[in-house]
Amino acid sequence: MKALQYRSIGSAPEVVVVPDPEPGPGQVLLKVTAAGVCHSDIAVMSWPAEGFPYELPLTLGHEGVGTVAALGAGVTGVREGDAVAVYGPWGCGSCAKCAEGKENYCLRADELGIRPPGLGAPGSMAEYLLVDDPRHLVPLDGLDPAAAVSLTDAGLTPYHAIKRSLPKLVPGSTAVVIGTGGLGHVAIQLLRAMTPARVVALDVTEEKLRLAREVGAHETVLSDAQAAAKVRELTGGVGAEAVFDFVGAQPTLATAGAVAAVEGDITIVGIGGGTLPVGFGQLPFEVSVSAPYWGTRGELVEVLALARSGAVSVHTETFTLDEAPLAYERLHAGEINGRAVILPHG
Amino acid sequence: MKALQYRSIGSAPEVVVVPDPEPGPGQVLLKVTAAGVCHSDIAVMSWPAEGFPYELPLTLGHEGVGTVAALGAGVTGVREGDAVAVYGPWGCGSCAKCAEGKENYCLRADELGIRPPGLGAPGSMAEYLLVDDPRHLVPLDGLDPAAAVSLTDAGLTPYHAIKRSLPKLVPGSTAVVIGTGGLGHVAIQLLRAMTPARVVALDVTEEKLRLAREVGAHETVLSDAQAAAKVRELTGGVGAEAVFDFVGAQPTLATAGAVAAVEGDITIVGIGGGTLPVGFGQLPFEVSVSAPYWGTRGELVEVLALARSGAVSVHTETFTLDEAPLAYERLHAGEINGRAVILPHG
Amino acid sequence: MKALQYRSIGSAPEVVVVPDPEPGPGQVLLKVTAAGVCHSDIAVMSWPAEGFPYELPLTLGHEGVGTVAALGAGVTGVREGDAVAVYGPWGCGSCAKCAEGKENYCLRADELGIRPPGLGAPGSMAEYLLVDDPRHLVPLDGLDPAAAVSLTDAGLTPYHAIKRSLPKLVPGSTAVVIGTGGLGHVAIQLLRAMTPARVVALDVTEEKLRLAREVGAHETVLSDAQAAAKVRELTGGVGAEAVFDFVGAQPTLATAGAVAAVEGDITIVGIGGGTLPVGFGQLPFEVSVSAPYWGTRGELVEVLALARSGAVSVHTETFTLDEAPLAYERLHAGEINGRAVILPHG
Amino acid sequence: MKALQYRSIGSAPEVVVVPDPEPGPGQVLLKVTAAGVCHSDIAVMSWPAEGFPYELPLTLGHEGVGTVAALGAGVTGVREGDAVAVYGPWGCGSCAKCAEGKENYCLRADELGIRPPGLGAPGSMAEYLLVDDPRHLVPLDGLDPAAAVSLTDAGLTPYHAIKRSLPKLVPGSTAVVIGTGGLGHVAIQLLRAMTPARVVALDVTEEKLRLAREVGAHETVLSDAQAAAKVRELTGGVGAEAVFDFVGAQPTLATAGAVAAVEGDITIVGIGGGTLPVGFGQLPFEVSVSAPYWGTRGELVEVLALARSGAVSVHTETFTLDEAPLAYERLHAGEINGRAVILPHG
Repeated sequence: MKALQYRSIGSAPEVVVVPDPEPGPGQVLLKVTAAGVCHSDIAVMSWPAEGFPYELPLTLGHEGVGTVAALGAGVTGVREGDAVAVYGPWGCGSCAKCAEGKENYCLRADELGIRPPGLGAPGSMAEYLLVDDPRHLVPLDGLDPAAAVSLTDAGLTPYHAIKRSLPKLVPGSTAVVIGTGGLGHVAIQLLRAMTPARVVALDVTEEKLRLAREVGAHETVLSDAQAAAKVRELTGGVGAEAVFDFVGAQPTLATAGAVAAVEGDITIVGIGGGTLPVGFGQLPFEVSVSAPYWGTRGELVEVLALARSGAVSVHTETFTLDEAPLAYERLHAGEINGRAVILPHG
Repeated sequence: MKALQYRSIGSAPEVVVVPDPEPGPGQVLLKVTAAGVCHSDIAVMSWPAEGFPYELPLTLGHEGVGTVAALGAGVTGVREGDAVAVYGPWGCGSCAKCAEGKENYCLRADELGIRPPGLGAPGSMAEYLLVDDPRHLVPLDGLDPAAAVSLTDAGLTPYHAIKRSLPKLVPGSTAVVIGTGGLGHVAIQLLRAMTPARVVALDVTEEKLRLAREVGAHETVLSDAQAAAKVRELTGGVGAEAVFDFVGAQPTLATAGAVAAVEGDITIVGIGGGTLPVGFGQLPFEVSVSAPYWGTRGELVEVLALARSGAVSVHTETFTLDEAPLAYERLHAGEINGRAVILPHG
Repeated sequence: MKALQYRSIGSAPEVVVVPDPEPGPGQVLLKVTAAGVCHSDIAVMSWPAEGFPYELPLTLGHEGVGTVAALGAGVTGVREGDAVAVYGPWGCGSCAKCAEGKENYCLRADELGIRPPGLGAPGSMAEYLLVDDPRHLVPLDGLDPAAAVSLTDAGLTPYHAIKRSLPKLVPGSTAVVIGTGGLGHVAIQLLRAMTPARVVALDVTEEKLRLAREVGAHETVLSDAQAAAKVRELTGGVGAEAVFDFVGAQPTLATAGAVAAVEGDITIVGIGGGTLPVGFGQLPFEVSVSAPYWGTRGELVEVLALARSGAVSVHTETFTLDEAPLAYERLHAGEINGRAVILPHG
Repeated sequence: MKALQYRSIGSAPEVVVVPDPEPGPGQVLLKVTAAGVCHSDIAVMSWPAEGFPYELPLTLGHEGVGTVAALGAGVTGVREGDAVAVYGPWGCGSCAKCAEGKENYCLRADELGIRPPGLGAPGSMAEYLLVDDPRHLVPLDGLDPAAAVSLTDAGLTPYHAIKRSLPKLVPGSTAVVIGTGGLGHVAIQLLRAMTPARVVALDVTEEKLRLAREVGAHETVLSDAQAAAKVRELTGGVGAEAVFDFVGAQPTLATAGAVAAVEGDITIVGIGGGTLPVGFGQLPFEVSVSAPYWGTRGELVEVLALARSGAVSVHTETFTLDEAPLAYERLHAGEINGRAVILPHG
């Protein structure tokens, strides 16, 4: 079959032909109907050889949906032809975290050498994808593959971040979204669908802010040195009960710290390399700062349900598998509007 | 001043002239701008003399908003002219429940003889209302008095009921509202504003169901013997994660029990006199059944914030204080659409 | 191998020889080191032929621990010789409930014909036990098999019930345990280890109350018509923030309702067939009544951790597999002190 | 009456005679039976004149208990002679935070000029203390004044910090307490009484660690550069689900960051001036870092209930009011074992 692989450090990903995978006992083979292109793949391909954590060549793609093509021995509960989304942050399935569906925080993944598809294990940018266990599949139940695939990361990650703050996002509260791109523009929709909070979006261009308003932001503020003061003013001086930073760079984190309300949450999703110093007197009382990773199995079920209700949709641009290298080029160049999706059989 | 009083058991309420109240130390005098008429007043006026819990005559009105007219000695934090809503379920302010703002569940109210205005203490159906402590006032901050007054009970009560179930009302879940009248039609709006749940409304006439759809119900079902089966079908057999029964009669509670999902909540708000038997095997596993009362101080702050955002509004019909007896007559006759509001200075 | 089977409706269970099981793909074979005898088995064996839910013969035993004897194809994460406990309420592993480890509430178990071992699937009262998936195994990590086995049900079930009420069991609160037998005497220990609540235990004999005090009850009250009044008095009239009824008969449920505090929880664990009617005015405000079933995967991990710390232990009496019919006889006769445990290789 | 006052910047506090206070409307006069000496008073007295936030002279003492000596006009719910503890972090009583009893986070205190006793308002180090509102009083109900007074801060502050982490402190979890002095030695007791977690205490001398073990720490580790590695080893590499830093200096915060588990809480209570940088990849996934302040009204009720049960006690050394300057000298010199308490009438 054809697959998009990252084959050697520093090179561009290429479409190659690899052996067709076959499902072993307990495994499920998917015919991939859509695979999502993510910024973090570009980050991975920028890492140096020294300390590179995965074996090469690596088939890319940690967002995937498909139809069940074959069942390994002993697999029950799914049937050939089922349309499913893949939960990506695979864990052992048995440890205390996995026992609650938090496979993103599996305590034994390192020890057992378990890796997500596309981030160690062969990924979804191929005609077929091997899934290690049927528990990692969630029924699409009518969702369009190309529209749904990005939800497995670009939807699940902000969903998990937001879920942490739901008890604080009561009527009268404010949620600030910093960075309104791939994840941020989904976050705005999630906040609107799931909470009565006022949503204030920050980004660096008026064009991005226009998109933010289109997907539901009540207010938008240009992300510059005056942004924090403007947000505080919008909240009557109280600040925001929840701040989601999808950039994570030093200036955005400084803004996050400056707009948080007493007892507010600051959730750092972006991998921009910045840090926010926390200590007594540094931030308003009891602001809680945290940097989570991806989401849980139960949350993916919920994200897909939300999409099914029409409350959240991802702006996508589609490519064939042969065009996948181009999709990465264009994402790298900042030319993708929303999220790029590969249709391996398209 | 003029006041609407229930003066003797079994008689209709009448407008009488009573001495103008004056605020003692720590008290606040409000000029009442609006007072809400509630079904529970009619229930109170139907009780027999034996065991009647309040002294007569009783000035009615447990929903009230007004402007601060005078401050008793020692009162701080409010100023004459402030427009405020009254938190009705007064407690001692100091016990373990009151320390969390749950004055509706005050542990010492009985012992100290503390009663809500209109339900023991002189109520809001008068030109002026004496409030025992400024902590029972929440700023209107721009809300229209006539539009806001019903929120202090008809908004706060369903809000409190719903807040209990928020963690269960995730995307893909279903909330069932039984009874779409005064409280129920607010509940539908609250559910839509605060949760991503699908809202299914039940009532006994097509006309009421039409109103339910207008205020946001996704689905409506005629409340009859087939209702439970229809709701189950709408949920693919799973049932509803939360059921709010604003009727509380035997048939509606039977429906509530029959539509609840595993781990669902059934919250009984209506005082229709029915009961739902709970025991192992009686309901789906871990359904939690509860009958709360009114709401907390913090929740009233939140309800008013939600109204300010435009997300919830109460259908009202207004009357002068002289017309108040008529308002009760019409409510009793089922002729009030939504909620009747008295404007004592209107 | 030898197995204890319930072979025909109404007959006593007998030890028979059955074929040795072999693990298929994804399955794990355990050499059973201990199996627990439970009252609910006796209930099952009292059911009539009509509507009997399981196929006969049925190998009994839904509490089991063992050592891994063989791995089916494709199984990872466990090794031969590992000492493990079996999570009993098997589910599909993939639905929204299972995705959070709540396999006890699996949404698809019925549809897929999935049954717990000993309650449909062949159980642990045999020399070997087939486990459908390694996710149903929790490491014993040093726990003694005979001492630990009952925790998988008689520990997990009260643990799950208690976990629901932890937020209410603050300092100054009271927890009432009705029925201090197999599950109840574990519940008392769990409450003492996990909460600062005062624990009041109710049972019908002074001897049982003595055991309750030995395992940690602060107060004991004879469970009779005066019990509720005594418990109320012990709480200064406030009542209990949590009531756990391990009997579930009509008189105990009446007591439960009569001792609950405002906002309290009543959790019905016992299958005694009683019901508690809930409606506005029937119980103190916002008492929440619920009847859960068994517990979650994550909770079993926690229960075993608690046992490892020495905070909880089960009174047990051990039997060989050949003596298992006798164990059931004696349990039925009320002659087992605590919990009977079968050692199939003992 | 006599009072201990901080009278001019940089000077030692002195005992002076000031006019007897009289309760205005809504206020309560206490005869002080005990007042607590706190490190933060010493911090206050070290601040420079520029920007000093309080008016001088200032009667010290933000921990206080007493008996009700006189009631201002309009006060209800308390009676002369009642023995009470004072909730110190006074707020407006009406804002959204105060409505939930979180007066420590009052949104209007600054605007209204509201200050805690001893930290702006006249404090408890005097024969009499004026309390602004009876809601700030919690009944002692039999607690000894000298033993209880420190709980209003040295008990309430760690209690609030711990309460945040209770859902994470399940069986098998680890709580780390850094700094086992005034607040830390109470924290250890609270953790033991309220959770099944293993408690690991860190401090800089073997003597302090001995005290930590005496009050309940399961394990103690010398707080040095190897401490983090030792704690990780004690947890089998997993780390601690909750870390409480009562020092808050740079080295202790570094240790806190190094010992936290995935999804753990780090709570910074100490005002040692350090900061912990949070960003993606800086700490284990989803560690939440926060610096709270004091506690809520409801929590003070709970802390006193816990003391009443005997589960927590503060090591105290008592002084007369005339000896109060000496108490501060000795605290400053590190010569107080536990907590110094002033008995103004002793």
